[in-house]
Amino acid sequence: MKNSSEVAVVGGGIIGSAIAYYLAKAGHQVDVLEAGQVGSGSTQAAAGMLGAHSEFKEFGASLYPFARTSQKLYEEAESDIRSLTGIDMERRSGGLIQLIFTEEEKKSMRSLFSSLKEVAWFDNPTVTKKVPGLSKAVSGAFHMVEDVHVKPEIACRGFHTAARMLGAGINAFTRVDEIVKESGHYLLRTSKGEWRADRVVIASGVWSNSLLSRTGLGTPIFPVKGECIAVTNTQAPLTCSLFHDQYYIVPRNNNELIIGATRVKHDWSTQPTLGGLQTVMEKAKKMLPEVDKMPFVRSWAGLRPQTTDGKPLIGEHPEMEGLYIAAGHQRNGILLAPATGKMICDLISKNTVPEEWKEAFRVDRLQTCEEIWI
Amino acid sequence: MKNSSEVAVVGGGIIGSAIAYYLAKAGHQVDVLEAGQVGSGSTQAAAGMLGAHSEFKEFGASLYPFARTSQKLYEEAESDIRSLTGIDMERRSGGLIQLIFTEEEKKSMRSLFSSLKEVAWFDNPTVTKKVPGLSKAVSGAFHMVEDVHVKPEIACRGFHTAARMLGAGINAFTRVDEIVKESGHYLLRTSKGEWRADRVVIASGVWSNSLLSRTGLGTPIFPVKGECIAVTNTQAPLTCSLFHDQYYIVPRNNNELIIGATRVKHDWSTQPTLGGLQTVMEKAKKMLPEVDKMPFVRSWAGLRPQTTDGKPLIGEHPEMEGLYIAAGHQRNGILLAPATGKMICDLISKNTVPEEWKEAFRVDRLQTCEEIWI
Amino acid sequence: MKNSSEVAVVGGGIIGSAIAYYLAKAGHQVDVLEAGQVGSGSTQAAAGMLGAHSEFKEFGASLYPFARTSQKLYEEAESDIRSLTGIDMERRSGGLIQLIFTEEEKKSMRSLFSSLKEVAWFDNPTVTKKVPGLSKAVSGAFHMVEDVHVKPEIACRGFHTAARMLGAGINAFTRVDEIVKESGHYLLRTSKGEWRADRVVIASGVWSNSLLSRTGLGTPIFPVKGECIAVTNTQAPLTCSLFHDQYYIVPRNNNELIIGATRVKHDWSTQPTLGGLQTVMEKAKKMLPEVDKMPFVRSWAGLRPQTTDGKPLIGEHPEMEGLYIAAGHQRNGILLAPATGKMICDLISKNTVPEEWKEAFRVDRLQTCEEIWI
Amino acid sequence: MKNSSEVAVVGGGIIGSAIAYYLAKAGHQVDVLEAGQVGSGSTQAAAGMLGAHSEFKEFGASLYPFARTSQKLYEEAESDIRSLTGIDMERRSGGLIQLIFTEEEKKSMRSLFSSLKEVAWFDNPTVTKKVPGLSKAVSGAFHMVEDVHVKPEIACRGFHTAARMLGAGINAFTRVDEIVKESGHYLLRTSKGEWRADRVVIASGVWSNSLLSRTGLGTPIFPVKGECIAVTNTQAPLTCSLFHDQYYIVPRNNNELIIGATRVKHDWSTQPTLGGLQTVMEKAKKMLPEVDKMPFVRSWAGLRPQTTDGKPLIGEHPEMEGLYIAAGHQRNGILLAPATGKMICDLISKNTVPEEWKEAFRVDRLQTCEEIWI
Repeated sequence: MKNSSEVAVVGGGIIGSAIAYYLAKAGHQVDVLEAGQVGSGSTQAAAGMLGAHSEFKEFGASLYPFARTSQKLYEEAESDIRSLTGIDMERRSGGLIQLIFTEEEKKSMRSLFSSLKEVAWFDNPTVTKKVPGLSKAVSGAFHMVEDVHVKPEIACRGFHTAARMLGAGINAFTRVDEIVKESGHYLLRTSKGEWRADRVVIASGVWSNSLLSRTGLGTPIFPVKGECIAVTNTQAPLTCSLFHDQYYIVPRNNNELIIGATRVKHDWSTQPTLGGLQTVMEKAKKMLPEVDKMPFVRSWAGLRPQTTDGKPLIGEHPEMEGLYIAAGHQRNGILLAPATGKMICDLISKNTVPEEWKEAFRVDRLQTCEEIWI
Repeated sequence: MKNSSEVAVVGGGIIGSAIAYYLAKAGHQVDVLEAGQVGSGSTQAAAGMLGAHSEFKEFGASLYPFARTSQKLYEEAESDIRSLTGIDMERRSGGLIQLIFTEEEKKSMRSLFSSLKEVAWFDNPTVTKKVPGLSKAVSGAFHMVEDVHVKPEIACRGFHTAARMLGAGINAFTRVDEIVKESGHYLLRTSKGEWRADRVVIASGVWSNSLLSRTGLGTPIFPVKGECIAVTNTQAPLTCSLFHDQYYIVPRNNNELIIGATRVKHDWSTQPTLGGLQTVMEKAKKMLPEVDKMPFVRSWAGLRPQTTDGKPLIGEHPEMEGLYIAAGHQRNGILLAPATGKMICDLISKNTVPEEWKEAFRVDRLQTCEEIWI
Repeated sequence: MKNSSEVAVVGGGIIGSAIAYYLAKAGHQVDVLEAGQVGSGSTQAAAGMLGAHSEFKEFGASLYPFARTSQKLYEEAESDIRSLTGIDMERRSGGLIQLIFTEEEKKSMRSLFSSLKEVAWFDNPTVTKKVPGLSKAVSGAFHMVEDVHVKPEIACRGFHTAARMLGAGINAFTRVDEIVKESGHYLLRTSKGEWRADRVVIASGVWSNSLLSRTGLGTPIFPVKGECIAVTNTQAPLTCSLFHDQYYIVPRNNNELIIGATRVKHDWSTQPTLGGLQTVMEKAKKMLPEVDKMPFVRSWAGLRPQTTDGKPLIGEHPEMEGLYIAAGHQRNGILLAPATGKMICDLISKNTVPEEWKEAFRVDRLQTCEEIWI
Repeated sequence: MKNSSEVAVVGGGIIGSAIAYYLAKAGHQVDVLEAGQVGSGSTQAAAGMLGAHSEFKEFGASLYPFARTSQKLYEEAESDIRSLTGIDMERRSGGLIQLIFTEEEKKSMRSLFSSLKEVAWFDNPTVTKKVPGLSKAVSGAFHMVEDVHVKPEIACRGFHTAARMLGAGINAFTRVDEIVKESGHYLLRTSKGEWRADRVVIASGVWSNSLLSRTGLGTPIFPVKGECIAVTNTQAPLTCSLFHDQYYIVPRNNNELIIGATRVKHDWSTQPTLGGLQTVMEKAKKMLPEVDKMPFVRSWAGLRPQTTDGKPLIGEHPEMEGLYIAAGHQRNGILLAPATGKMICDLISKNTVPEEWKEAFRVDRLQTCEEIWI
């Protein structure tokens, strides 16, 4: 049976699935090798905000254009994938509202957003009208109309199902333990046996360290656990996402609200704790007091693949030709997936890629992060 | 606190929710009284096919125009409700394909569908191309392009959330035990106390009998249990629903396939049995052999509110003015909800309603069905 | 088919199941008629503490001996039922510890418990040693060694499965809408048709009002919703239940801790709200701060059938011979089930029943409680 | 923080947990390093039969005494663990009945069991009386009274919680990627960083290959997927497990029946397929036709760690002193856990271990199994 590819993508989350999609679309013969179920890791735990603007402070000059590119790629991808597969990513407009409680917050945000024409200021009467049930302590808000959102698990399903329709292989329950360079190709030792590939992309998110470290890149990624809650919205519909102090409330198409997320560094557990959930509840109530009365639906936790400088690793290994990395997207994996997929495809296809992106996401720029056992 | 309405709707499934929606939209002051969670009964168990044509044999002359009207009302309702609430009913085009295995089936269906211009014949090469993985035993198919589908639980949520936005009250966990006619209004005895309403609509599906029988209409509704399975589609996407011998495979927007449904008369249990699930599996494999390899996601059962003549009860009580019934929609409750809601609203608003519909759905036309203890 | 019984028990929760068990054991021909799944209502939501002593303040002179009798009946019932059915109620020793934080609490409890030889005082060093991880704010505790606990859903399954083995009929998904006295027997109108019985017992917990009110007893029962959480105990095992201010932490045989419960009067919803869960978390942390770090497993809510004087209704209807009531057990339904079952059986069998119990639980002693719509 | 141990056990399933328990009890300083949640892999998917006799054909001369030893160790372990932790493994007597349908089966089994005094022959009237609802096609049965069963997930929880109480560290969500021999100790590279241990035990079941192969032992273990179903027993209780043709029906303490299991070689997916579930249903109906009417509760799949000669690997690495393996227990991991745990503890403690066991389970006796991609 078949066990070789032109390109093997290690990891079937949103990043690996988007890579496979863009590669398959460009005519490459690609296989995804995923340790568990496709999309069952950090992807399914994400809220799905495409926060190119709300994350602007984090992104800075280099990452913002990349994020915007990715945000825009979703429009096309969503429509193409729907035609091809029938899958609806639940992309939902309305944007995101970053709430301001204090004068200090307002000042610091205003200077931050001054250059962004897509960000509008809402004074108290405007935001209060826009968001029924909003906390009275809110003094105003910044509205980022293009920071829409998708349903991550389904977006991921869309990418890899479309990739499959375009000829890619999606191999779930296939863990890659080692990547060995042989003459002219790579040999992957997997739980199912050996796999051979001309080129390999490591896209295993927070689980990439083990493979990275064997290629001399150290272990630059660490988990930041995020705990979330879903409730049924029994009040007036929310027409946009709410955001404050890195916590958010995101409305889904089925009238649920997704509330998140804590940030617990170096915690690898995917189970929410009582304390974590309590923090989420408090933060949500600060924004929208009425969540207090809403029925709890479920809770979960996911692991963000964090890097020490806050930017992902995207690019070719400096010493191992044909080995690519696309990992460390932190809490922006859903947003950055299309641009990452396209960039990896362009690199493999020898298409032009902006030099500043190559430089910003260089895969050997980071140190191994300190070991912390918690 | 408030405990009176102009119109009280007993039952918060898709029928009661649609009634509340059309009434609220027309300016009536309406309250839904639902014994459990809204939409948690037969509604959430349905597959959501809007099968005006696939059910043509069942419908006959009187019900078909009503069904078509309802099918068309979904387009408008879906769009209005999305604007109002952000809820997406997951209405999905592609239609439905009724599979033909034998010459006899073909002949009988062909004569049935001859008058319906929306039904097209697909010969074997056409249907085989259209449906990847289709059983080789299929000889052809009838395609009903307008028999699209929605996600019932979410459609119901759409109707009642929109109704709420338009001023209706949605009272979950409020069981109505008795409806007493007093001078000029009705008194409803509920689990929470008394409720007063000028007009009442009984829309409790299979659970309507108890109230109907106390108004002299007997117990004309009985349950027909249906057992279903969801799988993840790991093969090529299905672009339309498949249908044969009253079993179906319906593709969802998230790439799941919904497979159903058995028909167990007089069974009130909402738990699927092993034997029931096995039947569903066999029927699905007959249509699409590859389901055999697909991962099982979940199974469930629901109760169709069946009447002895196969048509719903929609109309005013012959002797109790202001008391309306809208129940007994069998396996077509999702399809018929908008037309039912609108018809009840028109009756209450004294708008014109086609006489043939009034006659066909007359609420006192049926006998009490035989008691069967299983 | 069969649709008559010597005794029909309306309700298949722990009370109805225990009644059926004692009746069947005594040779009566009994059928349980349950609206949903057997044991799926308040029973499955309970924590299962057999708190004859911890509830002493509530019980007072009349109810305490009854509660103690019931507590002791569990020993025998558990063993008999295990032999008959293989079902293990997960009865677990260790008792219950009522925590004391303030001098005032201590004084008031000490006077309360002074007469109870089964209640021991633990000073701070003793309770701290007994309960690893206990809050440092605890000053001492009362230990009630006989207040053990069972797993309610399984205890209920034990009672009705044993009853079935002894000849009883267990009819799930059979809602009783009306009980009509005819000459020499009762006729029950149910969702499945009519049922005839010489004697009837109403044991529908918080859902009994509708039937009670039609027999002239008013609507004396109202719901008090309780919200609960289960966590995995990742700290040292808890060898007894903890209790303070009507909140508790109960250890299960599988190393989960059950934490509960809020008390929301007149709320009929069986969904926990975010605010309710947060209260539960806070109360648990006050007792055992380490729960903060424990993984959340699930949450749920149930409805306690409350009466205005805090005591259940157990006995024969004063005017309708052969009609018995056994409802309104509040948060002590699990504890009181065997004694209730036995008392109903004794009444039906014309055995002796203590007069003070008959008087204390007289079914016509209560007023209809005020209607409150929330 | 701490990141070293005397003994590091890689894998926190039933095998790793039992090893940790026996080591901690013997005074060793031990840490379990588990990639996911403890007990969340093959352990939680098992039925828990302690089938020393039913597996006799498989076991042969070498494995049977080991299996019997393990079976007997459960009695002591269960009682000790309950005292220490409050966890009840749900050990349940009644034994196992191997059904015989044909004369040929009977003959072959009779000769097999002739030497086992614990195996009794039941003729048709005896087995029919013993098992209500048994298929009429059964001609007789062999009863193995000592082949009782436990609830695997809880048994595992018992072992590792007891180990923790005895001083062991249980580190969940800690994946071990590499084991490096350094002078005098081993260095484990994990997802959380490095861990140092004097001795290491590889106990990762079907996921052990990657580590084994790096120590020169090849990849001798492959998965055999098993799909299972749970139903509610609505018929008479089953007092023993039923077994035929490697399929079984096992009664649980809560009145559920566990039905399994398929055997799909080289399939790494932990999702049941529709076809797999259908096979399970058919096999169950062949034994106990009434399961057809029983309510479905849930289904799942697990991976048995199979070896080419059908025996586990238990022992020290021939060339790497202090490195032990305990894996490849196939479908008998639950049964063999205590004896495996004790044997590893004895090897590490330099206690006597039967030579024939050492020889039978030698860790370098097997070849790498053929790679099969499915």
